[in-house]
Amino acid sequence: MPDDFETMWAHLAPIGRSAGTTGYFRQPFTVAERECHAWFVEQCRTRGLRIEHDGNGNTIGWWDSAAAIVRHVRHPRTPDEGAERAGLSVLTGSHLDSVLDGGAYDGPLGVVSALAAVDVLRERGFAPARPIGVAVFAEEEGSRFGLACLGSRLATGVTAPEQARELTDRDGVRLEDAMAAAGLAPALGPSAWLDDVGCYVELHVEQGRDLVDRDEPVGLASAIWPHGRYRFDFTGEANHAGTTRMEDRHDPMLTYAMTALAANKQARLASTGAPDVARATFGRLEVTPNGTNAIASRVTAWLDARCESEERLADLLAAIEKQARDRAGRDGTGLEVTLESLSPAVLFDHELGARLAAGKPVIATAAGHDAGILSTAGVPTAMLFVRNPTGVSHSPAEHAETADCLAGVEALADALEELAG
Amino acid sequence: MPDDFETMWAHLAPIGRSAGTTGYFRQPFTVAERECHAWFVEQCRTRGLRIEHDGNGNTIGWWDSAAAIVRHVRHPRTPDEGAERAGLSVLTGSHLDSVLDGGAYDGPLGVVSALAAVDVLRERGFAPARPIGVAVFAEEEGSRFGLACLGSRLATGVTAPEQARELTDRDGVRLEDAMAAAGLAPALGPSAWLDDVGCYVELHVEQGRDLVDRDEPVGLASAIWPHGRYRFDFTGEANHAGTTRMEDRHDPMLTYAMTALAANKQARLASTGAPDVARATFGRLEVTPNGTNAIASRVTAWLDARCESEERLADLLAAIEKQARDRAGRDGTGLEVTLESLSPAVLFDHELGARLAAGKPVIATAAGHDAGILSTAGVPTAMLFVRNPTGVSHSPAEHAETADCLAGVEALADALEELAG
Repeated sequence: MPDDFETMWAHLAPIGRSAGTTGYFRQPFTVAERECHAWFVEQCRTRGLRIEHDGNGNTIGWWDSAAAIVRHVRHPRTPDEGAERAGLSVLTGSHLDSVLDGGAYDGPLGVVSALAAVDVLRERGFAPARPIGVAVFAEEEGSRFGLACLGSRLATGVTAPEQARELTDRDGVRLEDAMAAAGLAPALGPSAWLDDVGCYVELHVEQGRDLVDRDEPVGLASAIWPHGRYRFDFTGEANHAGTTRMEDRHDPMLTYAMTALAANKQARLASTGAPDVARATFGRLEVTPNGTNAIASRVTAWLDARCESEERLADLLAAIEKQARDRAGRDGTGLEVTLESLSPAVLFDHELGARLAAGKPVIATAAGHDAGILSTAGVPTAMLFVRNPTGVSHSPAEHAETADCLAGVEALADALEELAG
Repeated sequence: MPDDFETMWAHLAPIGRSAGTTGYFRQPFTVAERECHAWFVEQCRTRGLRIEHDGNGNTIGWWDSAAAIVRHVRHPRTPDEGAERAGLSVLTGSHLDSVLDGGAYDGPLGVVSALAAVDVLRERGFAPARPIGVAVFAEEEGSRFGLACLGSRLATGVTAPEQARELTDRDGVRLEDAMAAAGLAPALGPSAWLDDVGCYVELHVEQGRDLVDRDEPVGLASAIWPHGRYRFDFTGEANHAGTTRMEDRHDPMLTYAMTALAANKQARLASTGAPDVARATFGRLEVTPNGTNAIASRVTAWLDARCESEERLADLLAAIEKQARDRAGRDGTGLEVTLESLSPAVLFDHELGARLAAGKPVIATAAGHDAGILSTAGVPTAMLFVRNPTGVSHSPAEHAETADCLAGVEALADALEELAG
């Protein structure tokens, strides 16, 4: 008998915890993430799911339908197909990698719930008319190579293999080398298995408190806000922190500090009168040479910005960049702003949502997901959210009650039964 | 024949250069710093100087006098002896370690000039009545273990061995382990050889443009400003950068950013009407978890502050800390401020300075030096500065013209002849 939800959860819990904290470090192609991945493959085997790896680090466990085994044919998509597309298989799943010092739920909850939903359907005596796939996408968080949803971006062709080959981690290791070092055989580029996918349903812990406010355990996503990541390179003049007169300095740390405050202020201003429409965060920094007694020569800082519309996101970035450039002029420092990734707004499939909603609350999210990438690539997509008591995510404090998780499993099983029946 | 100044300089030039930059990474007990150290020992041997190592990582090359060889006796010092102290030997030298991505001159110029000054004295036919020692002090910059002048602090007893044993580098390696890994036999604590030292003269590249403004190649130091290093630990709540409403955040990055701007502003304000009396710099940061899509849970930042008086330094720190705490209150973040080191004001020996000045300009400096530690410990001390065309230091752009360096060698030889004759 396969492990139940709580047993699966208990097996994943100790993998990749950071020393001295309760958080997780499951960066892609590291020992911890590979251990999670091996656990997933074992769980698929226990359930008799057929394992399929692609060359992008993604893995799918297939519950094949009798019919599908016969008609396993290529089914090329065109951008216009949209919701009308008559795909063969129903995909669910999520990811197992984490942000740095992340929580237990973001990603793994969707994978564990998908496996548990397969068990629920089998207990119900359900026999799928279409194949059901449980997917684990690689590098969803972008915590190692800086590009979120990397696995689904490559599988769908949203990101070209040439671009992915240039990505390096903080130690300068390239994506393909990291994959090879983890024993994988990289073959970056669009994944053939995706051609057979008719729709995708991803379950995820909520990253906010909408469901808490509504007193509901499970909700359905309507949209994902557009999301940009921008690298700000502030350059100045390295010098001695003791002997250099204040007025002789060109200190990029000051320009950065003003920019971090400006980002916060502009995101708050954007939400004035229009509640809750913008976010701007500087959470990652690299300082050169980073010595106590040296004025920095360079500060590189990454801005994460999201808004409820692409127009508002462009306005927000422009306002932050203007304040940064004004200050750089006063500090005598240089500034270069580089767009590292831009995820357009995602409106989840309306028809699919209507079929699955069944009285559930419908909420928007500012977090990116592989579901957003698949939606952008033309796969009809829906997301289920499970209540998060604190709303905190990307943190060891991220949480969901077991009863709510089990309600999520039931909702996901209902959705798969509806779609694959 | 020993190498001349320019040959010595050329031998040191390639050691410890950082890949891709023109700067130096000569952190103590690393391969690069050990290579500099081996070079120094070889240069001493070539000159017939007697090598003495202490258990703190400091090395001295002694030019013994005939008389001193006879009277090699312990000569305990008391704090009251001050300038009246009748020490036996005359010490010169500096250090060979660098800041991260530092310049060629800060430290090595004093060591190379000391060796060249020995050669000048021998060419003059000078026979010392007192021993002359050329010292290389360990970890002057504090770039690895965070405590500047560590070698001279331990030798003089200004820092206790118990405190030094607790110091770790960025990788958590303890001082004694780093020394042992470099093949040294650590025995931290006051150095017996220092008991025989009557005075210390350190030559250093100027870290400012006073000599440029005065059109002089060489000057004498009058004092070192008091200097404090403070660790600011800003703590908040890790959360998702996309999904957390701006008003729900407790982001320590914002508190830090305001504090960095406050430090700059307060140091400028302190100098208003009283030209050039204060410096405050945040040049080193550690962010946790340091992910683009995560609000930081912790920002640790190091403040380097120096003023022309201890009272003004205390006022400056208080003003910065007040602004930081006010902002922490508004951000809902925590702040802990820890003093990591405080170097009191150093007034170099007046009598010694008067003997060595000989019409040279007398200038103050805001940079700490081993000379400051020895002075604090009661050794009559003087410093010579060599002109720096840009004033830049702690940077690959640090520079001195060869003609000025050779003028410095002559001035140092004159000083040693005066003191050891």
